[in-house]
Amino acid sequence: MALKWSADEVFEFLRAEFPQALRDGVNYEVVKLEPEEAHVRLVAGDQQLRPGGTVSGPAMMEMVDFSIYVLLLAHHKEAARLAVTTNLAISFLRKPQPGPIVAQIRLIKHGRTLTVARVDIISEVDGKLVASSEATYFMGN
Amino acid sequence: MALKWSADEVFEFLRAEFPQALRDGVNYEVVKLEPEEAHVRLVAGDQQLRPGGTVSGPAMMEMVDFSIYVLLLAHHKEAARLAVTTNLAISFLRKPQPGPIVAQIRLIKHGRTLTVARVDIISEVDGKLVASSEATYFMGN
Amino acid sequence: MALKWSADEVFEFLRAEFPQALRDGVNYEVVKLEPEEAHVRLVAGDQQLRPGGTVSGPAMMEMVDFSIYVLLLAHHKEAARLAVTTNLAISFLRKPQPGPIVAQIRLIKHGRTLTVARVDIISEVDGKLVASSEATYFMGN
Amino acid sequence: MALKWSADEVFEFLRAEFPQALRDGVNYEVVKLEPEEAHVRLVAGDQQLRPGGTVSGPAMMEMVDFSIYVLLLAHHKEAARLAVTTNLAISFLRKPQPGPIVAQIRLIKHGRTLTVARVDIISEVDGKLVASSEATYFMGN
Repeated sequence: MALKWSADEVFEFLRAEFPQALRDGVNYEVVKLEPEEAHVRLVAGDQQLRPGGTVSGPAMMEMVDFSIYVLLLAHHKEAARLAVTTNLAISFLRKPQPGPIVAQIRLIKHGRTLTVARVDIISEVDGKLVASSEATYFMGN
Repeated sequence: MALKWSADEVFEFLRAEFPQALRDGVNYEVVKLEPEEAHVRLVAGDQQLRPGGTVSGPAMMEMVDFSIYVLLLAHHKEAARLAVTTNLAISFLRKPQPGPIVAQIRLIKHGRTLTVARVDIISEVDGKLVASSEATYFMGN
Repeated sequence: MALKWSADEVFEFLRAEFPQALRDGVNYEVVKLEPEEAHVRLVAGDQQLRPGGTVSGPAMMEMVDFSIYVLLLAHHKEAARLAVTTNLAISFLRKPQPGPIVAQIRLIKHGRTLTVARVDIISEVDGKLVASSEATYFMGN
Repeated sequence: MALKWSADEVFEFLRAEFPQALRDGVNYEVVKLEPEEAHVRLVAGDQQLRPGGTVSGPAMMEMVDFSIYVLLLAHHKEAARLAVTTNLAISFLRKPQPGPIVAQIRLIKHGRTLTVARVDIISEVDGKLVASSEATYFMGN
């Protein structure tokens, strides 16, 4: 199933419809966008950091949700607006080094109503896995 | 085990050490604080809302993490700084009505190294359960 | 929404269709069955015990899945056969005392396609919460 | 960190200490055992099957817990007896084809007190991912 929107088209939609996801100081960049996989990079702003300069847990959870939504938008265009997150689970494995982090998403189920994605969050500084997450999305009819 | 800090003392610490958790437009209020249970109320700011005025999923996840941390600080004072979230799981059950939401936390395990809390997020407008969460915290030595 | 089957009718169906759930040595008893809530009691057999006589983790996970299925059958009769578990999460809080345990289920969402249940597993011996679980079921069309 | 026990030594221990995990009709086989990764194969017995011959959800949850425990035993020998599962989450993605399934475990954190493993359950018949799981183990002191 080919993607229907490019990363630029997804961001154009987000800027218009969900400006708070791209608010000041939240700097997401899509570095890979394929039908089953996407990589989204975050250079965290002050509000997303903890003392010591590491990205906060809530910023990582927001990043997981955001990154999956980007891929759903690339697949379904505006119709993905109907997608709702039903479950999200995350394990925090180690504090990331100060610096950018990358969310690597893989769709492990992409059904008519339910989509499940697995997300690895990697520190770009040392390549280590800092968090592991899985989330389910429901697209009603 | 009695609490060592009041809500005011907890917030004083947070304002000094984690100012980004209490950044502009994020209005948390502790409405109940007991050894096993706490209620934290959020009047969401613009950045935490979705179209239609409902609180966003990421804002609810941040609220879960924040609320449990408040209770850990009330128990352990500065030492809770060493607590790290190891797992967080959340189910989103229904979109909240526009308006305040309340996180009702209950400690279901409070061990020497591991603490587990269950969190109900309730819409203050209609009293409905909008999300159910559970998180685990590790306090090293 | 009133229940359509009694506990006896549910077990009659299970004995015919899922005999392995009620195999030798697995002794479930429904002690409460209401539209939003059910209590299921287990006197574990040898295969479900760990050294020391405590119920094993896998036996508790099976009990969670079984108990929710009992309530779905009571609601939907044979049609619940189409229900599939999509997610199950469990936290093990403390080892149960040797003796019976009870799963207390509460439906926190019962929608047309998705049902979410929260389950407390309690030791009957000392009344303590030994595990906390949440599971989601999908009933397709 | 090299493994201290072979698969045979692990099973010898299990047969003596946890015979119910290897009860009649539960046929696990370790097909790969490395410090960070293990593959465990299951030819399910009657009690682990659902109508249609597919492996049941509870059998897969038991398999996840069992497989991780095998790897912990290979690492820590009898001392792994002190390991307790603290959390386990699983998503069921599709019904497996009738036939053997394989649990592919990867340790994503192996700390002094907490170990986190991610488990893919694959149908050997068609190679498809049927379930995705993650579990946390605590080894006290």
